Amino acid sequence: MKQERLIAELQKIVGQQSVLHKPDDLLAYECDGFTIHKSRPRAVVFPNNSEQVASVVKLLHRERIPFLPRGAGTGLSGGAIPIGGEVIISLVKMNRLLEVDFKNRIAVVEPGHVNLRLTKAIAHEGYYYAPDPSSGMSCTIGGNVGENAGGPHCLKYGVTSNHVLGVEMVLPDGEVVTLGGTVPDMPGYDLTGLVVGSEGTMGIVTKIFVRILKKPQGVKTILALYDSVDDASQTVSAIIANGIIPGALEMMDTLAIEGVEKGTYVVGYPKDLAAVLIIELDGLTAGMEETAHQIVEICKGYNVREVRVARNEQERTLWWSNRKTAFGAMGNLSPDYLVQDGVIPRSRLPEVLQRIAEISERSGLRIANVFHAGDGNLHPLILFDSRIPGETELAVQVGSEVLQACADVGGSITGEHGIGIEKQNDMTKIFTREELDAQVAIMRVFNPDNLCNPDKIFPKPARCAEVKKAVAVAHSH
Amino acid sequence: MKQERLIAELQKIVGQQSVLHKPDDLLAYECDGFTIHKSRPRAVVFPNNSEQVASVVKLLHRERIPFLPRGAGTGLSGGAIPIGGEVIISLVKMNRLLEVDFKNRIAVVEPGHVNLRLTKAIAHEGYYYAPDPSSGMSCTIGGNVGENAGGPHCLKYGVTSNHVLGVEMVLPDGEVVTLGGTVPDMPGYDLTGLVVGSEGTMGIVTKIFVRILKKPQGVKTILALYDSVDDASQTVSAIIANGIIPGALEMMDTLAIEGVEKGTYVVGYPKDLAAVLIIELDGLTAGMEETAHQIVEICKGYNVREVRVARNEQERTLWWSNRKTAFGAMGNLSPDYLVQDGVIPRSRLPEVLQRIAEISERSGLRIANVFHAGDGNLHPLILFDSRIPGETELAVQVGSEVLQACADVGGSITGEHGIGIEKQNDMTKIFTREELDAQVAIMRVFNPDNLCNPDKIFPKPARCAEVKKAVAVAHSH
Repeated sequence: MKQERLIAELQKIVGQQSVLHKPDDLLAYECDGFTIHKSRPRAVVFPNNSEQVASVVKLLHRERIPFLPRGAGTGLSGGAIPIGGEVIISLVKMNRLLEVDFKNRIAVVEPGHVNLRLTKAIAHEGYYYAPDPSSGMSCTIGGNVGENAGGPHCLKYGVTSNHVLGVEMVLPDGEVVTLGGTVPDMPGYDLTGLVVGSEGTMGIVTKIFVRILKKPQGVKTILALYDSVDDASQTVSAIIANGIIPGALEMMDTLAIEGVEKGTYVVGYPKDLAAVLIIELDGLTAGMEETAHQIVEICKGYNVREVRVARNEQERTLWWSNRKTAFGAMGNLSPDYLVQDGVIPRSRLPEVLQRIAEISERSGLRIANVFHAGDGNLHPLILFDSRIPGETELAVQVGSEVLQACADVGGSITGEHGIGIEKQNDMTKIFTREELDAQVAIMRVFNPDNLCNPDKIFPKPARCAEVKKAVAVAHSH
Repeated sequence: MKQERLIAELQKIVGQQSVLHKPDDLLAYECDGFTIHKSRPRAVVFPNNSEQVASVVKLLHRERIPFLPRGAGTGLSGGAIPIGGEVIISLVKMNRLLEVDFKNRIAVVEPGHVNLRLTKAIAHEGYYYAPDPSSGMSCTIGGNVGENAGGPHCLKYGVTSNHVLGVEMVLPDGEVVTLGGTVPDMPGYDLTGLVVGSEGTMGIVTKIFVRILKKPQGVKTILALYDSVDDASQTVSAIIANGIIPGALEMMDTLAIEGVEKGTYVVGYPKDLAAVLIIELDGLTAGMEETAHQIVEICKGYNVREVRVARNEQERTLWWSNRKTAFGAMGNLSPDYLVQDGVIPRSRLPEVLQRIAEISERSGLRIANVFHAGDGNLHPLILFDSRIPGETELAVQVGSEVLQACADVGGSITGEHGIGIEKQNDMTKIFTREELDAQVAIMRVFNPDNLCNPDKIFPKPARCAEVKKAVAVAHSH
């Protein structure tokens, strides 16, 4: 289909104002939070409801034009980058909170609904939405579904997939289906679980049924400062071994602390710290004081330099604001940085941190570590300068080595940021050919024409062969 | 393949003693816990390890002989019944606990490992396995994976899918794959989540990576006796509205109480009770006393007749043993009974119970209610006498009406017992044709020849059409 004709047809569906197609207008859509790769979309369309999404998809499907969904564009692995010039279906206009059922603890939102807005909208009744990515102020719940987003409090409450009961989705041929629903653990195959984390490769999610939770009665936040990363790691293990599951258990190392302390929210951490732990209890107030005391004692058992409980909500908010700026704060230390995202068994923390330090030393690139320590989710931040020839490539290479270190101890190459285009080739670090085959075959069930966010997630050279095999399997009937 | 030849080939793989094929020997394998339908398997084979499973499956695949996996045969929806004379692959010999990693809280078991044995094996270090179906003393973890089994404590801890990190599975063509692994939330599609609850239709699971939990520091169990089911239901809602998540929150009605009190474990409930609630707190001991007190006060606010906390472990065990015999105890009231399993939004409890009472009255069949009240998972037990002509059919019909009542309030037709053959036709109560299509298409990716536990889960007449469509979709490439 000629470009002019396509734009006209799209405009007919969503209105003239809701289609971007001039080169200047498209600039902002060339990448998402993964800024290393850029590619221009053919157009960006802003539907207003499920029906418009279905009509747009039907048109694109008929014309065999590839497309992809986009929320706030905060994704960190490039899942929303139109690497093949796809038409971007932006969901930002579909940002309504459609329904809240406090009694059964369910909210229904459109995909463009911003994560933190949901918590704000239901706070008056004492409820909140648990998954809390650091980008919560801007990222959308639709994007969270795509990436199966996590956050500090996922240690206790689980990631997005634990909070999504169902979705309405426009399949890549324009058909609308509802998967899951308003009660958990529906019969049949868990297709909702399959769609959550599928990075927009199975269809365009247009409605999301999420679980909402009663706000904890009380919260206690503990800050523990360490002279040794090992001692901090041991503390993490000891807390959990004692049967305590904090709401959050975060760690930052020296370089990360240096970065955040140069930012907007300054805690005043001593400059010579090796690590800081933020340990947050939440839940019933009954017994919380006692548990907080127990944690303080555990910290003391591992040579903590200083440990204290937040005196008030203001102090607690400062600690968290400081922590949540960690990624962006790398800009205070380096012109560029690459966020990595790996998961390891908690017990291997000291050893993997040691390997990361070695990788940093060998490469000459500084690496700051910020992590959800409680669940072994590392976020090494690799500092580099893209103006120095070769350094971008070196950073990518270093990132890959860090992931290898995670995979080597039985870990995973992403905790919550997804694969996108960033880690396609790293998939072979943790999956065999057969396992990737199975995944591609599943994708083809939903997305047989490979029109919906094509060429993401799976390693590129392997992909063709797998698709062939998948189709062969199906053909054999 | 001729029967004699088949038996010889199977014996070659697993040994002569590990194949049953004489009619008398096959009798016990004609049905599982769903006893209404019986059908004889062609043979039963008992492999000892993954390699033997793979060899058996390869042979059957090559010869196009359908087969199905079986654990302890305690399933309640007929998933392990060889309705087409399938070869049964029994996993009872593969019952080993392969590995326990206390530090990272992971255990690796073979599918035939009995649920409660795992908790027993790790108790010495203070750990346990959370999903606790009432059949825990005999059911296998492989079977739990097939059915996505629940249990009383799933209110707080989630069902089986929340505790399975990965599986090794023999695909229906004999290929062995590993899905998921030892860290949660692996990248790519959540195939582990897909396999959990797929009722043996995607392959034969041969190894399971499960999460193990630290035993709660303390437990407090509260018994509350009511003169009105409504008051008991309101109490359930009020407890949860207060931000308390008990470990378990169970209800039994008059008829259920009558049954269990005629069994082995007699609590001594008054005969004129309308309902009993068992409310169990678990977790850190700090604050537990206070929370228990709060619950007692809530009960009093809803006209409880009597409420008390278990004085000791012995009393607590008695209450639970009594409750856990509820299904079997129906044998004390009626020659036959049918266990139903529906889920409803918690707030609709009184209304659905009312409808169940009406269905009971109209049909003339008594219905006892036992349920995981906290998560709205009902287990109506329909009493009937199969010796009376037509009464079995009536019981099945009544069961279907009960499920319709659940579906009508936005609920689900199974919480934890699966679809099997029992509820195939009820699937249309909650899924549209397109939604069933999508599920069948997914099944065909794993099981393209429909050899692995064929003709289960999906409604029968619809199935052919769907398969045709699924294949057509794939063929279009």
